Amino acid sequence: MSSATAAMKGLVLSRPVTFVTGNAKKLEEVRAILGNSIPFQSLKLDLPELQGEPEDISKEKARLAAKEVNGPVLVEDTCLCFNALNGLPGPYIKWFLQKTGHDGLNNLLMAYDDKSAFALCIFSLAMGPNVEPITFLGKTPGKIVPARGPKDFGWDPIFQPDGYDQTYAEMAKEEKNKISHRSRALSLVKSHFAEAGYVFQTDTTSTG
Amino acid sequence: MSSATAAMKGLVLSRPVTFVTGNAKKLEEVRAILGNSIPFQSLKLDLPELQGEPEDISKEKARLAAKEVNGPVLVEDTCLCFNALNGLPGPYIKWFLQKTGHDGLNNLLMAYDDKSAFALCIFSLAMGPNVEPITFLGKTPGKIVPARGPKDFGWDPIFQPDGYDQTYAEMAKEEKNKISHRSRALSLVKSHFAEAGYVFQTDTTSTG
Repeated sequence: MSSATAAMKGLVLSRPVTFVTGNAKKLEEVRAILGNSIPFQSLKLDLPELQGEPEDISKEKARLAAKEVNGPVLVEDTCLCFNALNGLPGPYIKWFLQKTGHDGLNNLLMAYDDKSAFALCIFSLAMGPNVEPITFLGKTPGKIVPARGPKDFGWDPIFQPDGYDQTYAEMAKEEKNKISHRSRALSLVKSHFAEAGYVFQTDTTSTG
Repeated sequence: MSSATAAMKGLVLSRPVTFVTGNAKKLEEVRAILGNSIPFQSLKLDLPELQGEPEDISKEKARLAAKEVNGPVLVEDTCLCFNALNGLPGPYIKWFLQKTGHDGLNNLLMAYDDKSAFALCIFSLAMGPNVEPITFLGKTPGKIVPARGPKDFGWDPIFQPDGYDQTYAEMAKEEKNKISHRSRALSLVKSHFAEAGYVFQTDTTSTG
């Protein structure tokens, strides 16, 4: 799309997209995948953490962030959803991990034969404070298993993706990134930027 | 405390306290207990539901509400905390009830001998948009049991308070109200208003 067409569609942006995170690891991952395809900055914002359905949580967070930043924002949320529990702990996985550990997460499924689960990553992009956010969902199916592998990254040791004998924690990072919920969501974000042809008229760089 | 003393302590309020709720049952219960002890109005506000520790969730909600209302507010939150899960589902009980039902809640404890739990009610009172909220906690200990009694009020059928053979759902309403987490929290709210001697200079009524 030419700059002129983009401008006609109202897609000219005077500010880079702010990725809202305080997590250096996430920022690194996002930067590695999005590369220089869009002008991009990161910011740690003290936003309230919300309850609700995963997509609604993410959209609402994007709305709040876009208001604070008064410009385009990208926010990210991660869920671990147990099918036997109809998607829970889902967005509350962080609290269950913190309070009950890897064993506690396995114990939640003690009553069920179905140990299947999916890892879900949602990015929401709000192009400004009064623009309805767009969501990008990355989903990786698998099952919940007793912890195996390094225990330094969240619930990775208890999630074994379908088609693999290893847990997320046991897999080589490159291997995990090929199929991970986050990389799947991010590749949708990347495609969106490639196709939307936003024009960034900023000091940093411009596309289009 | 005289009006003059209250005024000197900065406790004169020009607006009634707004109880933020969209739930008619809760409003009725609050009105029944607080009676005419304070000037009081209710309002349904579309506030974001937050994640976190129960007390923090409640305080943050009060802060947001006080900003919206630009005056004194009272907010209420309820949790059902399983001891074996270190307090979870806690503030997320609503979602677990909705997605997995009474059986699902019992199933969460399948791996544990300890079925003990406590019902927690938190009221937070913020006297204005920039005043740190005060919290009032009501707690009723008990245990999680297979559902017994009428199924029309949340998780009442699976919570049996200590010292009783009946679940909340099976108990007479007056009996339940004597020991319930909500009535305990509300009686603290009531005592606070009795002791603080706020002076309400409003159109409705005044105390002090």
